Amino acid sequence: MKKTEERKVLRDPIHGYIHVDLQVIWDCINAKEMQRLKRIHQLGGDYQVYHTAEHSRFAHSLGVYEIVRRMVNEVQALHDTLSEYEKTTVMLAGLLHDIGHGPFSHAFENISQLRHEEYTVKIIMEESSEVHQILENCHPHLSEDVASIIQYRHPKECLNQMVSGQLDADRMDYLLRDAYFTGTNYGKFDLERILRTIRVKDGKIVVKESGIHSVEDYIMARYHMYWQVYLHPVARSYEILLTSIFKRMKELYRKHLDFGKEVSMFVPFLKEEVASIQDLFLLDEGAALYGFSCLRNSEDEILRDLSRRILDRKLFEYETIHDEKEIEDIRKRVQDMGYDPSYYMHRDIVFQKPYAPYSGKNTAHAVWVLKEDGNISELEEASEIVHALTKADLKEEQKVYYPKEKL
Amino acid sequence: MKKTEERKVLRDPIHGYIHVDLQVIWDCINAKEMQRLKRIHQLGGDYQVYHTAEHSRFAHSLGVYEIVRRMVNEVQALHDTLSEYEKTTVMLAGLLHDIGHGPFSHAFENISQLRHEEYTVKIIMEESSEVHQILENCHPHLSEDVASIIQYRHPKECLNQMVSGQLDADRMDYLLRDAYFTGTNYGKFDLERILRTIRVKDGKIVVKESGIHSVEDYIMARYHMYWQVYLHPVARSYEILLTSIFKRMKELYRKHLDFGKEVSMFVPFLKEEVASIQDLFLLDEGAALYGFSCLRNSEDEILRDLSRRILDRKLFEYETIHDEKEIEDIRKRVQDMGYDPSYYMHRDIVFQKPYAPYSGKNTAHAVWVLKEDGNISELEEASEIVHALTKADLKEEQKVYYPKEKL
Amino acid sequence: MKKTEERKVLRDPIHGYIHVDLQVIWDCINAKEMQRLKRIHQLGGDYQVYHTAEHSRFAHSLGVYEIVRRMVNEVQALHDTLSEYEKTTVMLAGLLHDIGHGPFSHAFENISQLRHEEYTVKIIMEESSEVHQILENCHPHLSEDVASIIQYRHPKECLNQMVSGQLDADRMDYLLRDAYFTGTNYGKFDLERILRTIRVKDGKIVVKESGIHSVEDYIMARYHMYWQVYLHPVARSYEILLTSIFKRMKELYRKHLDFGKEVSMFVPFLKEEVASIQDLFLLDEGAALYGFSCLRNSEDEILRDLSRRILDRKLFEYETIHDEKEIEDIRKRVQDMGYDPSYYMHRDIVFQKPYAPYSGKNTAHAVWVLKEDGNISELEEASEIVHALTKADLKEEQKVYYPKEKL
Amino acid sequence: MKKTEERKVLRDPIHGYIHVDLQVIWDCINAKEMQRLKRIHQLGGDYQVYHTAEHSRFAHSLGVYEIVRRMVNEVQALHDTLSEYEKTTVMLAGLLHDIGHGPFSHAFENISQLRHEEYTVKIIMEESSEVHQILENCHPHLSEDVASIIQYRHPKECLNQMVSGQLDADRMDYLLRDAYFTGTNYGKFDLERILRTIRVKDGKIVVKESGIHSVEDYIMARYHMYWQVYLHPVARSYEILLTSIFKRMKELYRKHLDFGKEVSMFVPFLKEEVASIQDLFLLDEGAALYGFSCLRNSEDEILRDLSRRILDRKLFEYETIHDEKEIEDIRKRVQDMGYDPSYYMHRDIVFQKPYAPYSGKNTAHAVWVLKEDGNISELEEASEIVHALTKADLKEEQKVYYPKEKL
Repeated sequence: MKKTEERKVLRDPIHGYIHVDLQVIWDCINAKEMQRLKRIHQLGGDYQVYHTAEHSRFAHSLGVYEIVRRMVNEVQALHDTLSEYEKTTVMLAGLLHDIGHGPFSHAFENISQLRHEEYTVKIIMEESSEVHQILENCHPHLSEDVASIIQYRHPKECLNQMVSGQLDADRMDYLLRDAYFTGTNYGKFDLERILRTIRVKDGKIVVKESGIHSVEDYIMARYHMYWQVYLHPVARSYEILLTSIFKRMKELYRKHLDFGKEVSMFVPFLKEEVASIQDLFLLDEGAALYGFSCLRNSEDEILRDLSRRILDRKLFEYETIHDEKEIEDIRKRVQDMGYDPSYYMHRDIVFQKPYAPYSGKNTAHAVWVLKEDGNISELEEASEIVHALTKADLKEEQKVYYPKEKL
Repeated sequence: MKKTEERKVLRDPIHGYIHVDLQVIWDCINAKEMQRLKRIHQLGGDYQVYHTAEHSRFAHSLGVYEIVRRMVNEVQALHDTLSEYEKTTVMLAGLLHDIGHGPFSHAFENISQLRHEEYTVKIIMEESSEVHQILENCHPHLSEDVASIIQYRHPKECLNQMVSGQLDADRMDYLLRDAYFTGTNYGKFDLERILRTIRVKDGKIVVKESGIHSVEDYIMARYHMYWQVYLHPVARSYEILLTSIFKRMKELYRKHLDFGKEVSMFVPFLKEEVASIQDLFLLDEGAALYGFSCLRNSEDEILRDLSRRILDRKLFEYETIHDEKEIEDIRKRVQDMGYDPSYYMHRDIVFQKPYAPYSGKNTAHAVWVLKEDGNISELEEASEIVHALTKADLKEEQKVYYPKEKL
Repeated sequence: MKKTEERKVLRDPIHGYIHVDLQVIWDCINAKEMQRLKRIHQLGGDYQVYHTAEHSRFAHSLGVYEIVRRMVNEVQALHDTLSEYEKTTVMLAGLLHDIGHGPFSHAFENISQLRHEEYTVKIIMEESSEVHQILENCHPHLSEDVASIIQYRHPKECLNQMVSGQLDADRMDYLLRDAYFTGTNYGKFDLERILRTIRVKDGKIVVKESGIHSVEDYIMARYHMYWQVYLHPVARSYEILLTSIFKRMKELYRKHLDFGKEVSMFVPFLKEEVASIQDLFLLDEGAALYGFSCLRNSEDEILRDLSRRILDRKLFEYETIHDEKEIEDIRKRVQDMGYDPSYYMHRDIVFQKPYAPYSGKNTAHAVWVLKEDGNISELEEASEIVHALTKADLKEEQKVYYPKEKL
Repeated sequence: MKKTEERKVLRDPIHGYIHVDLQVIWDCINAKEMQRLKRIHQLGGDYQVYHTAEHSRFAHSLGVYEIVRRMVNEVQALHDTLSEYEKTTVMLAGLLHDIGHGPFSHAFENISQLRHEEYTVKIIMEESSEVHQILENCHPHLSEDVASIIQYRHPKECLNQMVSGQLDADRMDYLLRDAYFTGTNYGKFDLERILRTIRVKDGKIVVKESGIHSVEDYIMARYHMYWQVYLHPVARSYEILLTSIFKRMKELYRKHLDFGKEVSMFVPFLKEEVASIQDLFLLDEGAALYGFSCLRNSEDEILRDLSRRILDRKLFEYETIHDEKEIEDIRKRVQDMGYDPSYYMHRDIVFQKPYAPYSGKNTAHAVWVLKEDGNISELEEASEIVHALTKADLKEEQKVYYPKEKL
C-alpha cells in the first residue's frame, strides 16, 4: 500500500491525534463524499438538548478509523496475522461506514426508500463516486472488500467485528465522542484498557477475562448514554417534528399538490423509486434546513407551521402515558386546537437493554470472553453484572408528544 | 425582574452548567434570532483545519452570558453596587452580542454593507425582531440599554468592559471554548482565578496585582490561539475562497449577469442598499452552503469552480513571500493555468500583538491592575512580561494563496 | 458563627477550590490533629499498585467538607431549614470524620484495640486535643454534636446521612479523588447532577426520581473502583504483609521478647490496654515506615524479612484457589521454604455487592428515591438496574498469598 | 537487551500508561533505591500550599523514563540512529536521574556534604547498591554510561540533552505532573506536538521552526509554574523552617551537645565527612519527619519549637522588603520576642528568568531551532517572544520570613 509522503496527523480531542500514513486513506478523507459528512450532525437533533453536541459524522468517522488503526497495530494477534491489504481494508471500512447518511438520520429514513447502510454500499460500489474511484485505483477488489465488511459478510469474521459488533470501533468512538461534546460523563470508559485486553481466538475478536470489568463499564456507559442523550425526550421531540414534516411533504407530493418552491432538494426522496447517490449527495443538513426555511412561506399551513417549529425550536411537549384513556384525551385536545393528530401527535415507546446477548444466529455480534482456561464464553455468561442487567425487568417508557398551544 | 419557575440549567463542557433564572434571559435564548446562531459556526472555516471545531455561535453566546452572570454574582463589588436591572442588562448584552453575525463572519462582511456589530444593534432595536419584543415587554428601556453596552457607550464603564474589553467575558469564553473544541491546549487559562482577582476601582474593572500571573497566562493563551488556530493558513485559505466567491457574485450582479438559480438568499447582500434583518435572518451557513451547492451548476465557470472548491475542500495552496518578485512569478503561474488572479490569487499579511496597550483614547479597553498601594496602572506597566511582549519586534507574515493545479 | 477575615480558598483538582469562610473550620484545618493526616495515605498501600495514588487523608477530608458545604448551601431544602449552627456542625463532621485513622488503616486496626471511628470520637471529645479546644471555644455543645453525627446518632437524620450514608459526601469525594489520583476512569460520576437532584423528605435525604440514572452510575462507579483499586490483589498483598508484621510484633511483645530498638512508636499498641490519642498522634505512616526500616536490623528473623519486604516492595505472590487441596499444597511449599505459614501465608476472600439494600434496621443507610407521585421508595425498588445488580449471583474470589521464593 | 516476558504497563494520569519491555528497566524500577523514592515528595514542602501536591519522586522518575522512551521510539532520527544499547542507556538515565535525592531536597542539601546529583552517581557506581548490580549484570559498561549521561558528559550530546537540557524529559514531565497534582493549569503545554517537532541535527536535539509556538508555550508554562508553585512564599517558608532545623542540629552536633534521642538518622549528615549511600538510603522523608516528631521532646528549646512548627504547619510569616531599614526593624522584633534571628529570621531573594539563553559555554544546554533553510539558531534568536522575555527587566523579589508571634 502506497504511503503518504510524510505521516499526516489531525488533532482530535478524543484520540489526541488521528494518524494517517496510507495514501488511499488520505485520499478518501479528502473525497467529496467524506467532506459532505461535515455537513451532517453526528447526533441529529441532540444539539437541541445538549447545545454543544454539534459535532459531525465526519469527525466521528475519523475517530472510528483511528480506533481500527490502533487495533490492527496494537493488538498483537491482529498485527501479526492480518495482511497489509486486510488492515487497509478494515481501516477504510471504519472510515467510510457512515458515508451514506442522510440529514437527521432516523427521521429521514422514514421517507427515503433505502437505509443509510444501503446508501453507504452504493456510494462505495457505484462508479460515479469519488470514493469508489479512489478505492479502485488503489486495488481492483478494494471497494468490494470494504463493502463486504460494512455489510458484515467478509469471510474473516474479526474484520466485520471491528467495525460493527457490540464492542466495535464505531460504538467505542461514538460513546467517547458524544460524551465529550455533550459535556456529560456517562459515555466515558477505559478505551486503553479494552484495547489492551483484546485477543483473537478461532478468528474471532475476544476480550481477556481479566479485562471484563472494563467491558462491564463500557456496557453501562452505553446504557446511560442511551437514557441521558440518545433517547432524551427533547431530542425525540425534535425528531418527531422532522418525521411529521417529511410525512407531510410525502403526502402532498403523492397528491400532486404544490407545497413550496425551492424545496427541490427533497423531491427525489418523495418519489416511489430509489433516489440516486447524487441526490443524496446534495441533501445534507444545510440543504434540508434551507429547505425548511423556504417552507416557512409554503402554501400549506401544516408545512409552514412545522418548518417554523423546527427552525425556531418550538417543539412539541410530551407526557408519560399510563393508559389508553390518556391518549384519547390528548387526541381530543390536539383536535380542539385545530391540529391534525396525524402530524401533531406522536406516540413513542422507548426501551433499552444494556446488552443484547447472543441470540444463536450470529456468533460475532455478541461480545466474547476468553477465559483463563483458554475457552471462550459469551459476555452474559462470563459477567454476573451483565447477566443481571440482561435479566433485569426493564420498564418501557411510553410518551405522547403534541403541541400544548398554538404558535 | 421576573424569575423563571425553577432555575434552568444547560449542561456545558466549559462551564459545567449554564444557569438561568430570569425569564427575560430564558425567553431571549429561545427567540428565533438566538436559535439561528445554532446554524452559524463560531470559528467560520476553522473546522476545515481542526475537524472538531464545529461549535456554533449559539453555544459561545451562552458561555459569554454565563461568565457575565458569574461576574455580577461572584465579584463582590459588582454584586453589591449594580442594581438588579443593570445586572440583567449586562447579562443580556453578553448573551446577545453576536446575534448579528452572518455566515462565515469575516469573509461575508466583505460584501455586506454593515458589520455584524451594526446588525446586532439593529436586531435588538427594530420592532420586528422577536428579541426586541421580549426586551421591550420586560422593560421599556431595556433594548436601548442592552444596545448601549454592546456599542461600548453605556455610562457605567464597567458594564461595557465586561462585554468588550481586553479581559472580557467574550474573549474569556471563546479562548476556553475554542481550545476545548479544537482539542488544543493553547487557549487554557485560569478563569476561576481571574474571576477571584477582579475588583472595581473608580467604576472600572481592574485586577488585583496578586492575580497578574493569571492575566499574563491569559494574554499568552490568546497570543498562541491566534497563531495556532485563528490565523492558521488553511483556515485563511478557506476564508479566501469564500471572499472570492462573494466578490464574484457581487461583480456578476453589478453587471446584471444571471449566475444561477436558487441563490436568492445572497441577492439582498449584493445590492447597493443595506439588507434588512429579515434578509440576514434567512442567510445562515446552511443556506449559504446550499447556495454554493446550487452554484456547482452555475453558468459562470468561476462560480462553478469556487463553489466546488468550498464544498469539497479543494483549497488554495499558500507560500510565504519574501519579495515582490515572487509575487509576480505566482501571478504568472496563475494566469498560465487560465485562472483570473483577481479571484484566484490572494496576498495575505497577518500580524498579531499579544496585547494592545492603552493608546490614550479609551481608558477602558486596556487591562488595569490594582496595585497593592491602591493605585491602578495599565497592564503593560504592571507586568514586565507583558511589557516585553508588547515591545517585541514581532515579524509580519506575508503569504500568497493560489491554486497549484486545475481541479 | 464567626467568619474568617476574608474567604479562604484552597486549590483542589477535584472541586476546583475548597472554600472556607468560617473561623472554626479554618482553625480545625490548621489543628495539629488535622495536619497529621497529611502523613497518612488515603489509600494505604494502593500506591504500590497505582504509583500515583499518593494522596493523603488530609486532602480527602477537605474534599468531604467541601461537598457537605455545597450540600447545605446548594440543596434548597437544606439551605432553608438547617440553622447556621447545624450547618457548621455537619461541615465539621465531614472535615473531621477521618481524624482517628492510624497508619495503613485496615492492617493496623488488626492490632489496635480501637477502630478508627472510635479514635475519631475520642480526639473530638478529649480535652487534650487541639481540635476539641477549638470546637469548645466556638460553642459549648459543638464537639458533642460533631461527634454525634460521626456516630450516626444525631437526632436530625439528614445530618448523619450527609456524612455516612450510601450516598454521602465521604464516598462521593473518595470515588472522584481516588479516580483522579490513580488515573483510572472508573470512579467518575456526575457529582453536579446528583447535588442538583437531592431533596429532603420527612427529614431524610432523598434523590429525585429523574436523577436516578446518575445514582446508578455512581453505584457502578463504586463497584468498579472496588474491583479495580480497593481490592486489587497487589494492594491486598501489601496489606497482608503489614498485617503479618503487626501480628509478629504483638506476638513477640506478648512473650516479652526484645525485637528491636527504636520501634517505640508501636509499643503502646501492642499492649492490652487502649493506646491514648497521644500515642496515636505520634504513629503516622512516616513513623511506621521508619520503624520498619529499624526492624531491618531486628534480632528476629521474621521481622527482619517482613520489614524489608514492605520497604522494598518484595510482596507475596497470590493464587486463586478452588479447593482445600490447593491450600494444603501451598502450605507445604511455604513450610518447605522454611517459612512459618502463620506469617507467610494468608487466605483472603473478597466479595463485593454493588449496593447494600435496606435491611430493615437503619432506614437512613439506604438510598431513598423521591418518586414523581411524592412517595419515597428504596433505591433497589426504584431502579431495575440496581435491583438486578443486588440480586446478581456474584462470585466470591478466594486467593492465597505467599512468597514464591526466598529473598 | 533482554525483554520482559510480556510488556508491563503502569497506569499513569500524565502519560496514560508507562510502558516497560526491557528487563533491566523493570529490575531497576523494583530496586530498593528506586522504591525508596516513593518516600520522598517530588515537590518538597509544596504540599503545604497545594494540599494535593503529594506525589513522589518515584512517580516523576517513571514519567521521565516514559518521555525518553517515547523520544527514542517516536523521534524518527533518534529511532533510526541510536543503537539498542544507547536507547536503553538513556532510558535508564531518565529513570535513575533523581535517585540520590535526600528528604526535602534543597533544604537538606544545606547540611549534606554532597548534592543530590553526586549521590545519584555514587548510587549508580558503587558496588553495594542494588541498582549498580542490576546494571552491571546487564552490561559491563552500563552503570558508567548511565552515569555519564546524568553528568552531561556522554560523547553523544543528544543523549545528555534528553535528560538534562532546557527542553528535556525531566522538565517536561515535572511541569505536566506538578500541574496535574497541584490542580493548576499553569504547567500544561503540548507535549505531543513538541515530540512531533523534535529533530536531530549535527548530533544535537533541535526543534523544527514550525513547532516554535509549542516551545514558547512550554517556556511560559515553566515561568508561571515557578511563580505560582515552586517559589510560592508559603512553600519557601516551610523550606526555611527545614533549613533552620538542620542548621541548628549541625551547630549542636559541632558543639558536642546532646539534642535528642532517636534522631540517629540525621547524625551521619552532621559530620565533617561525606555520609555514605547507606546513610542516605535510610534517610527518607518518613524518617526525617519521625526524627522531627522525636525532637518535639528535645532538650534544646529551639529544636523543640522548630520541629513542632514543621509538623503542625505553624510556619513563619513573610513580608516583602524594600530597604535595609525594614530588615533591621524585623530583626529587632524577632529578638524582642526572645527568638534567635540566626534561626528565626531569613532573608530570601527570588528571581526567575523565563529562559536562560546560550551563554557560549555549553552549546547543548540551550534550545536549538531548526530553521526552514536547514540552519539552526538558538531559541532566543528564533523566537521574538522568547527574545523579549529574556530581555525583560524582571524584578527581583526580596522577602523576610520570621514568626509573628510565640507559639
